[in-house]
Amino acid sequence: MIDTETLQKFRDILGPKGFTDDPDDIAPWTSDWRGRYHGTAAAILSPASTQEVSQVLALANRLGVAVVPQGGNTSMVGGATPPMDGSALILSLRRMNQIRSLSAKDNLAVCEAGVILSTLHDAAADAGRRFPLSLGAKGSATIGGLISTNAGGTQVLRHGTMRALVDGIEAVLPDGSIYEGLDALKKDNRGYDLKQLLIGAEGTIGIVTAASLRLVPAIADRAVGWVGVETPEDALALLRMLESRLGGMVEGFEIIADDGLGHVLSHIPSTRSPIETRTPWHVLIEVDLDEQTEPSAAERLEGALAEAFEAGLAKDAAVAASEAQAEAFWKIRESLSEAERAQGPALQYDVSVPVARMPAFMTQAAAAAQQAFPGTTASSFGHLGDGNVHFHVRAPKGTSDGPAWIAADGGRINAFVHDAVVAAGGSISAEHGIGQMKRTELARLASPARIATLRAIKAAFDPRGIMNPGKLVPLDGEG
Amino acid sequence: MIDTETLQKFRDILGPKGFTDDPDDIAPWTSDWRGRYHGTAAAILSPASTQEVSQVLALANRLGVAVVPQGGNTSMVGGATPPMDGSALILSLRRMNQIRSLSAKDNLAVCEAGVILSTLHDAAADAGRRFPLSLGAKGSATIGGLISTNAGGTQVLRHGTMRALVDGIEAVLPDGSIYEGLDALKKDNRGYDLKQLLIGAEGTIGIVTAASLRLVPAIADRAVGWVGVETPEDALALLRMLESRLGGMVEGFEIIADDGLGHVLSHIPSTRSPIETRTPWHVLIEVDLDEQTEPSAAERLEGALAEAFEAGLAKDAAVAASEAQAEAFWKIRESLSEAERAQGPALQYDVSVPVARMPAFMTQAAAAAQQAFPGTTASSFGHLGDGNVHFHVRAPKGTSDGPAWIAADGGRINAFVHDAVVAAGGSISAEHGIGQMKRTELARLASPARIATLRAIKAAFDPRGIMNPGKLVPLDGEG
Repeated sequence: MIDTETLQKFRDILGPKGFTDDPDDIAPWTSDWRGRYHGTAAAILSPASTQEVSQVLALANRLGVAVVPQGGNTSMVGGATPPMDGSALILSLRRMNQIRSLSAKDNLAVCEAGVILSTLHDAAADAGRRFPLSLGAKGSATIGGLISTNAGGTQVLRHGTMRALVDGIEAVLPDGSIYEGLDALKKDNRGYDLKQLLIGAEGTIGIVTAASLRLVPAIADRAVGWVGVETPEDALALLRMLESRLGGMVEGFEIIADDGLGHVLSHIPSTRSPIETRTPWHVLIEVDLDEQTEPSAAERLEGALAEAFEAGLAKDAAVAASEAQAEAFWKIRESLSEAERAQGPALQYDVSVPVARMPAFMTQAAAAAQQAFPGTTASSFGHLGDGNVHFHVRAPKGTSDGPAWIAADGGRINAFVHDAVVAAGGSISAEHGIGQMKRTELARLASPARIATLRAIKAAFDPRGIMNPGKLVPLDGEG
Repeated sequence: MIDTETLQKFRDILGPKGFTDDPDDIAPWTSDWRGRYHGTAAAILSPASTQEVSQVLALANRLGVAVVPQGGNTSMVGGATPPMDGSALILSLRRMNQIRSLSAKDNLAVCEAGVILSTLHDAAADAGRRFPLSLGAKGSATIGGLISTNAGGTQVLRHGTMRALVDGIEAVLPDGSIYEGLDALKKDNRGYDLKQLLIGAEGTIGIVTAASLRLVPAIADRAVGWVGVETPEDALALLRMLESRLGGMVEGFEIIADDGLGHVLSHIPSTRSPIETRTPWHVLIEVDLDEQTEPSAAERLEGALAEAFEAGLAKDAAVAASEAQAEAFWKIRESLSEAERAQGPALQYDVSVPVARMPAFMTQAAAAAQQAFPGTTASSFGHLGDGNVHFHVRAPKGTSDGPAWIAADGGRINAFVHDAVVAAGGSISAEHGIGQMKRTELARLASPARIATLRAIKAAFDPRGIMNPGKLVPLDGEG
């Protein structure tokens, strides 16, 4: 544990508002929100400015005290949970919650790390603009965390992940020096791109304190459709057809297996299937226009779907007739995880493969997993346009003790799924990052060149190892 | 110089086709194409495969022999010229010139580093697709060099720089290990993004051997227009209006001062002004449609320009009535540098500022430079939508000895212009990189945090300093 004298030095920098060592204040932040990872911390440091972050890191570096940066604490991989041994302090960015500027004309918002995603959504909407990245945790997730994990979501097809939306970054490096890179330059070739390096670095080489974020026009007209298809291959062909007809207007393209839809219909109140026919696969499509133009989004989508019927790609289809119906279509997609959980214990994987290989992966990997682990049910859904598969393996029917099943079979199933992903040229982390959850699997599966590179960069930035220890970078002996 | 025994070891790896120490073969590649930088090299190594690059780097690393990666040798900043002291060998990627695959369906081409840009253009066109990055040196510049300098060009507004078009990378690291990252994943969060780090790294931390590149639909319909405007501010307002009306269809938006146009008209044969009125500033606009739809690109552009006239932003305008006329409009823009050179010796700067500040920068920095250096004429043109200014300072009238003028005043003018760029929150290298030309200015102007970061990354990847020595990273004592 970190001694009182050391803690006092941090308190001296931050003052009473920026420091707490009260166990009741600390407790909620030492476990991840899904309750899978637990740690301890003697204090939470809450700097209110970039300058204070700088002073804190300079001191931490000098004393060799580790810090765990934390935003909304919504990591899916234990990326913001401190270690169990109390060797690190939590460094919360939540007090740095100012939107420093927002310009509709320049389509740019400069936000501090602690700004909550939904707050930015609201501010952009007030200015007639939109920040086009959203996810379930938007009411808690912060800009700093979203950048540090290169967050994705359902709008990536059109607007990219967080990486595509960050035009500039301000960060504090482990030695306390401040990297001032907020100027949003479209062209800038002054060497290694530190901005790109910090995006997705999970707080292991520095702390993002603010960012210049790209805004896009508010949606002027949207159409949401539901299409029944025979195979994932047909779904991909449908996506390609839509892209060629509607270009950049396709914002969402989600693929859902029929049994996933069935689980939603039976477990989630007041849901109904958008189409009559039960096809083996379903696709949820959103088409967005930035301007009210003719033809409307719905007319464009209907035109494209008519062509899809002719080509035999669509078996049944519905275009939402109202905003309420559009929301109802999306609710099915958003309830999938919950409905799947109601089926019993399951292992859930956030993986990606090249888009062209996703249809085959969805069917073949599921079949292979079920064969390898008799009694299990494997299913997948996800963002087809991004190659992002949410792959689930459910415990055999009647399994009552989920944790025992996971303890017994989880490791082998993890390895099986991840091996299949690697064989398909994919990534074992599409959206959530590595954190502590996937570190040893990364070590097992990444090439020596990749692991050596991760370690070299980590050591170059953080030679004393004070930044978010135990996350992302395979430890010595791993890999 | 490197001894014969050492050279023989490289020859043993590469065979006679992959190795030359013939001074006549070597000579053309030891100077940059503009003849500003000169070096010497005992041999050119020309591996034919990734495996050979790996063996060469492993050997070079073991022996401590430096290598200078080279593609088409079209660097604007001396980035591919070997040092004068003969301490490095040239490592040419020109034999690795295969397009390994090209899929129209997946909009993806996998190219080796030595593929020439225009070769890729042709191959994409044959498949009904387009690789949407182009520049003057397209007949020589190679994919590896374009990636290593994060090249730009005139289509960045719509399609981004090279960084936005690289979906995957294969590279050899300085120790000879191969980084296999060609799989094109839309979502991949497995830690620090080595692909992003190699893009724009100017061959100082590894050698890009191949890349997965994004293709886009061929242009189905384009409109090219020329608009006379009063001020750069009006030009920016016009761009914003076009973006809001035409969204992602605006592919080119170039701003040109009237005296620049005048120089083209008087120096370049068979050019004529697209419009009758001589306004202080001109804008060249290209609107592209990926599909033949109604209204046509020309109708869309005309509609938008009608609105611009009403708003008082456009004083005169012409939309090209034929492909030949469209080419003629573009020829003016592409002849600007040549026409400017005919005016006498000049210093040319490739800089960028935030888009919103570009109008003020164009006028104020030019006025300030002329005041600070009496007799000079400063002018600017460039990619307004990208904030990319081509800023020229011409020697006083009657200056016959350009090199003497540059020797006398060049350093002070460089510092003046770069200081103005930094004051505007800009970058001293928008497109061309740092190379050897801007290394000391980068050292002078970058923050200590930025320089420390560059050095730390360089040292982490290339501890023996064998990769493209003297380029990009400020030396000890600089900065």
